[in-house]
Amino acid sequence: MSRKVAVIGDGHVGQTVAHHLVVSGLVDKLVLFDLDEAKVKADVIDFKDAMANLSHHVEFAYNDYAELADTDIIVSALGNIKLQDNPNNDRFAELPFTSTQVKEVAKKIKASGFHGKMVVITNPVDVITMLYQEGTGLPKEHVIGTGTLLDSARMKHAVANSLEIDPRSVVGYNLGEHGNSQFTAWSTVRVLGKPITELAEEQGLNLDEMDKQAREGGFTVFYGKKYTSYGIATAAVRLVETIFNDAHTELPVSNYAPEYGLYLSYPAIVGADGILERLQLDLTEEELQKLQVSADYIKTKFAESTEE
Amino acid sequence: MSRKVAVIGDGHVGQTVAHHLVVSGLVDKLVLFDLDEAKVKADVIDFKDAMANLSHHVEFAYNDYAELADTDIIVSALGNIKLQDNPNNDRFAELPFTSTQVKEVAKKIKASGFHGKMVVITNPVDVITMLYQEGTGLPKEHVIGTGTLLDSARMKHAVANSLEIDPRSVVGYNLGEHGNSQFTAWSTVRVLGKPITELAEEQGLNLDEMDKQAREGGFTVFYGKKYTSYGIATAAVRLVETIFNDAHTELPVSNYAPEYGLYLSYPAIVGADGILERLQLDLTEEELQKLQVSADYIKTKFAESTEE
Amino acid sequence: MSRKVAVIGDGHVGQTVAHHLVVSGLVDKLVLFDLDEAKVKADVIDFKDAMANLSHHVEFAYNDYAELADTDIIVSALGNIKLQDNPNNDRFAELPFTSTQVKEVAKKIKASGFHGKMVVITNPVDVITMLYQEGTGLPKEHVIGTGTLLDSARMKHAVANSLEIDPRSVVGYNLGEHGNSQFTAWSTVRVLGKPITELAEEQGLNLDEMDKQAREGGFTVFYGKKYTSYGIATAAVRLVETIFNDAHTELPVSNYAPEYGLYLSYPAIVGADGILERLQLDLTEEELQKLQVSADYIKTKFAESTEE
Amino acid sequence: MSRKVAVIGDGHVGQTVAHHLVVSGLVDKLVLFDLDEAKVKADVIDFKDAMANLSHHVEFAYNDYAELADTDIIVSALGNIKLQDNPNNDRFAELPFTSTQVKEVAKKIKASGFHGKMVVITNPVDVITMLYQEGTGLPKEHVIGTGTLLDSARMKHAVANSLEIDPRSVVGYNLGEHGNSQFTAWSTVRVLGKPITELAEEQGLNLDEMDKQAREGGFTVFYGKKYTSYGIATAAVRLVETIFNDAHTELPVSNYAPEYGLYLSYPAIVGADGILERLQLDLTEEELQKLQVSADYIKTKFAESTEE
Repeated sequence: MSRKVAVIGDGHVGQTVAHHLVVSGLVDKLVLFDLDEAKVKADVIDFKDAMANLSHHVEFAYNDYAELADTDIIVSALGNIKLQDNPNNDRFAELPFTSTQVKEVAKKIKASGFHGKMVVITNPVDVITMLYQEGTGLPKEHVIGTGTLLDSARMKHAVANSLEIDPRSVVGYNLGEHGNSQFTAWSTVRVLGKPITELAEEQGLNLDEMDKQAREGGFTVFYGKKYTSYGIATAAVRLVETIFNDAHTELPVSNYAPEYGLYLSYPAIVGADGILERLQLDLTEEELQKLQVSADYIKTKFAESTEE
Repeated sequence: MSRKVAVIGDGHVGQTVAHHLVVSGLVDKLVLFDLDEAKVKADVIDFKDAMANLSHHVEFAYNDYAELADTDIIVSALGNIKLQDNPNNDRFAELPFTSTQVKEVAKKIKASGFHGKMVVITNPVDVITMLYQEGTGLPKEHVIGTGTLLDSARMKHAVANSLEIDPRSVVGYNLGEHGNSQFTAWSTVRVLGKPITELAEEQGLNLDEMDKQAREGGFTVFYGKKYTSYGIATAAVRLVETIFNDAHTELPVSNYAPEYGLYLSYPAIVGADGILERLQLDLTEEELQKLQVSADYIKTKFAESTEE
Repeated sequence: MSRKVAVIGDGHVGQTVAHHLVVSGLVDKLVLFDLDEAKVKADVIDFKDAMANLSHHVEFAYNDYAELADTDIIVSALGNIKLQDNPNNDRFAELPFTSTQVKEVAKKIKASGFHGKMVVITNPVDVITMLYQEGTGLPKEHVIGTGTLLDSARMKHAVANSLEIDPRSVVGYNLGEHGNSQFTAWSTVRVLGKPITELAEEQGLNLDEMDKQAREGGFTVFYGKKYTSYGIATAAVRLVETIFNDAHTELPVSNYAPEYGLYLSYPAIVGADGILERLQLDLTEEELQKLQVSADYIKTKFAESTEE
Repeated sequence: MSRKVAVIGDGHVGQTVAHHLVVSGLVDKLVLFDLDEAKVKADVIDFKDAMANLSHHVEFAYNDYAELADTDIIVSALGNIKLQDNPNNDRFAELPFTSTQVKEVAKKIKASGFHGKMVVITNPVDVITMLYQEGTGLPKEHVIGTGTLLDSARMKHAVANSLEIDPRSVVGYNLGEHGNSQFTAWSTVRVLGKPITELAEEQGLNLDEMDKQAREGGFTVFYGKKYTSYGIATAAVRLVETIFNDAHTELPVSNYAPEYGLYLSYPAIVGADGILERLQLDLTEEELQKLQVSADYIKTKFAESTEE
């Protein structure tokens, strides 16, 4: 009965997710959490002040873990974005901060009786998704990281831009860690009815340049406003809708890879029961090596995050 | 052909308006303007990074006044919210800053050949709406301030909250200056099929208390996050949709009152041609006096804003 | 978790409700029922053929009462519209047919373990809503008829049309039986900030003429296409959304009136728990008499429907 | 300013397109046309009776060709579906009827000063699209047939069904005449990150069986309700939205193929300016032959349609 979502972390990303969920009518009840009680209370009142001018209704609650017992989907957007403003654009700079918080939050989620699905945005997302899964004891398939769903969208934006087409008409994936070691698996990218590698040869397209554009796009956003919000929030909302609709959609998200023993981004079929199936891509040797490097990196960082 | 909106001012409010317009599919093309070029460019790229995960498409441009020639609706959300953080919660603290900016922007709008409708959020909104109208030379009916559409929504929130009903089931208006001199015209408020004054007597409701709650709600939002966004942005988006749909909806917005020779909030019928008709309310003597006080205040402030 | 609706009766009205629910993204799972198995199966396949070109996903099932065990809302749209094509426009012409069917369907609903809310469109709606409530054993507050929500919308259309305003800016209700004895309670109708009776005097509006227009509109629709669909379906969908959102909206719907011991249309507050509160209108003597006549008529017809 | 659509032909398909456009908020003004004036008038009144319970407003007009002068998109849905109920499921059975009507309608469209885009559903769609283009004198790129956008959606439904995935996660096209000679170009179909031909071998999938399912699905719909509506209407609405949004989406629609000198379905990039670019697929020899057969068939039929 009805759709209930909780957003943990009411910063730039969390509030953008919340705003999207509210104005689109996707949720019936929204629970917001933030350590800054004045901020999260302000946002709830502000949303309620919007209701009379909005066409559908949403109920609100905040900072009440008891609400999680019957929540369908938790979106974790907590973080400390200031820590990402470092010379190497390293998402792991946030790890000491977020991993500590996430362990505490996971305990509270577990204690609440929550038995829904989790969508994790908090960075470094692959490590954090695994920490949530372990901390909450939820089935591995029920805890999903947004992962390279955003990187793939950025790649599609770059490709679409150079060909003057709709990014929705670009097929393909970015894989691995949602961080510096992620990469576009160009062998999976198709556009205008062809592999992009073939098209690139025909039309003299520079794939490295597109890769660079996609990365630089992210940096331009981050350095232009000191955070990123719309791209990542939309990726999270898409995951939320896919779960509610039980759509069985193929999405490159961070999910548990048994062959590596950790979470990383690889396309999977997503539905109401979380991760339903992982794809089996025919990657090139080079791509497989890049994926291994990415996996190794996550492994090291995960180990660090669990040391005392 | 298609819906084109420009948002001038990409701060807390402008970006919330833009996000609402994009995720709801209400616009086909969105043009953003901000003095901080890095910020507005970042937001446009961030929106484009969202496209692949959003179900409908939006085209973007930024800081290009030539785009206004065929823009349908301009939303003015420029401002300097820090100036509102003053001991008296006085929206006029922003006036010296915004009036200067607005005069420049209005010149550029005029020069662009813009001939659409304007929705003004910039505070102090009644004075600023008039400055825009004079500066652009647009017909008075085509320049509309969000005015007390937000205050009315806050009143509905407070009333709805005390009666445990939907704010959309509360009828009535806040009138006058969108600022400290605005007031709820309780004689216009009806709920549960009755005048609220009658219900208040029957059930011992305290209207002054509701008034206080509505005002304090606004302050709690402002002091909790140092700005307000969702309530005001939703009011502006509702106006935008009402204009596109040519809905002829009755809304308490800031419009030109010939009897006072200035803009203030009073319910009017809004459609594709802007303000189509002003209501003729049967206000009480006390309410008429309050409205006069509000009008006098706006008049004084407008005079100040046009002095050199 | 997710929104699940069943529509019983896949004729003109039921299919319009289903189509609205699907294209608006309001439901995650839809179950259709019809005695014509080929028709209902055709509609489900046709909806599935639409999925690839629709932005959100919906799951489908049909003619399977087991699905009702976890269904949130059942919409009853069964009927035999040909029976309404009679010289007196009498909705009770359908009663012998629909009452028999409804009793059978109610048994199956009860047997399924259904414990959600019912929205009843099937005519004569006031009698049928009561039959459903009795047959299913659901709480009276959980079974709601669309009642005069449609008649009120028609009245608003007629009033809005004569004043060139948005029907959403007209407040007021039609009351009583959704049939020939329903009436506009003009004492409750307000528009442009005034009672319509006052406005009618000022502007020489003819309320009887508006009443006539609203009724004739309905007949023009019925005789023009031999059924009505969009108006009634939209009323039902609004009820469905109000229940999912727990919006506590004031709506003139058919609900149980203890003072009459039957269902008839009278404004009530509607939320996730169905009918939450009934309004207490200050009707005129004449309106109270009309309501009594309407109630008496329903009582007689209900008695007939339960005779063997 | 605002979105204006006309739907010509208010039968099963046209009314479903209109209903979708109205309830989704995609249009601001809708103009309906039908030879049965009582029917089209009934639908307009019925839609207006829905307005008070719908969250956004739509303006309506009917049977007035003068409205086309500033209409953005015309959807042609006229036809006589009873003629398709023939032993061979031959869409050309409607040609003598529809081609005569279309020639008349095209003249009126031309005379109205219409200068927007056309979306043609009327069957046999490839021939009719060409007749519209010739009759209106509009640029070839501005007249588009829904073509195999529906057949492709049916193929995706069949493939998705056998693999238990989202039809939106299936890439590929049906090509040629929207009729008995259309075919799935399996070489273009990809799913789960692989060509379906490869997957079919690995998993023992039967592509012929899927083809059969897709075709039989269509027949089951048609014979179950004597028309089809949701699938085709959703395809048309998707085209309408793609044009309004200027999305540059890749869609298999009926567009002018200079190599054949006629309209047939082949993927193209669609935006506000209609057909922007045609793809260059690497089809197999067998597929190229099938496409030629389809083209030859359309050519013969088009010749028949233009004979006196």
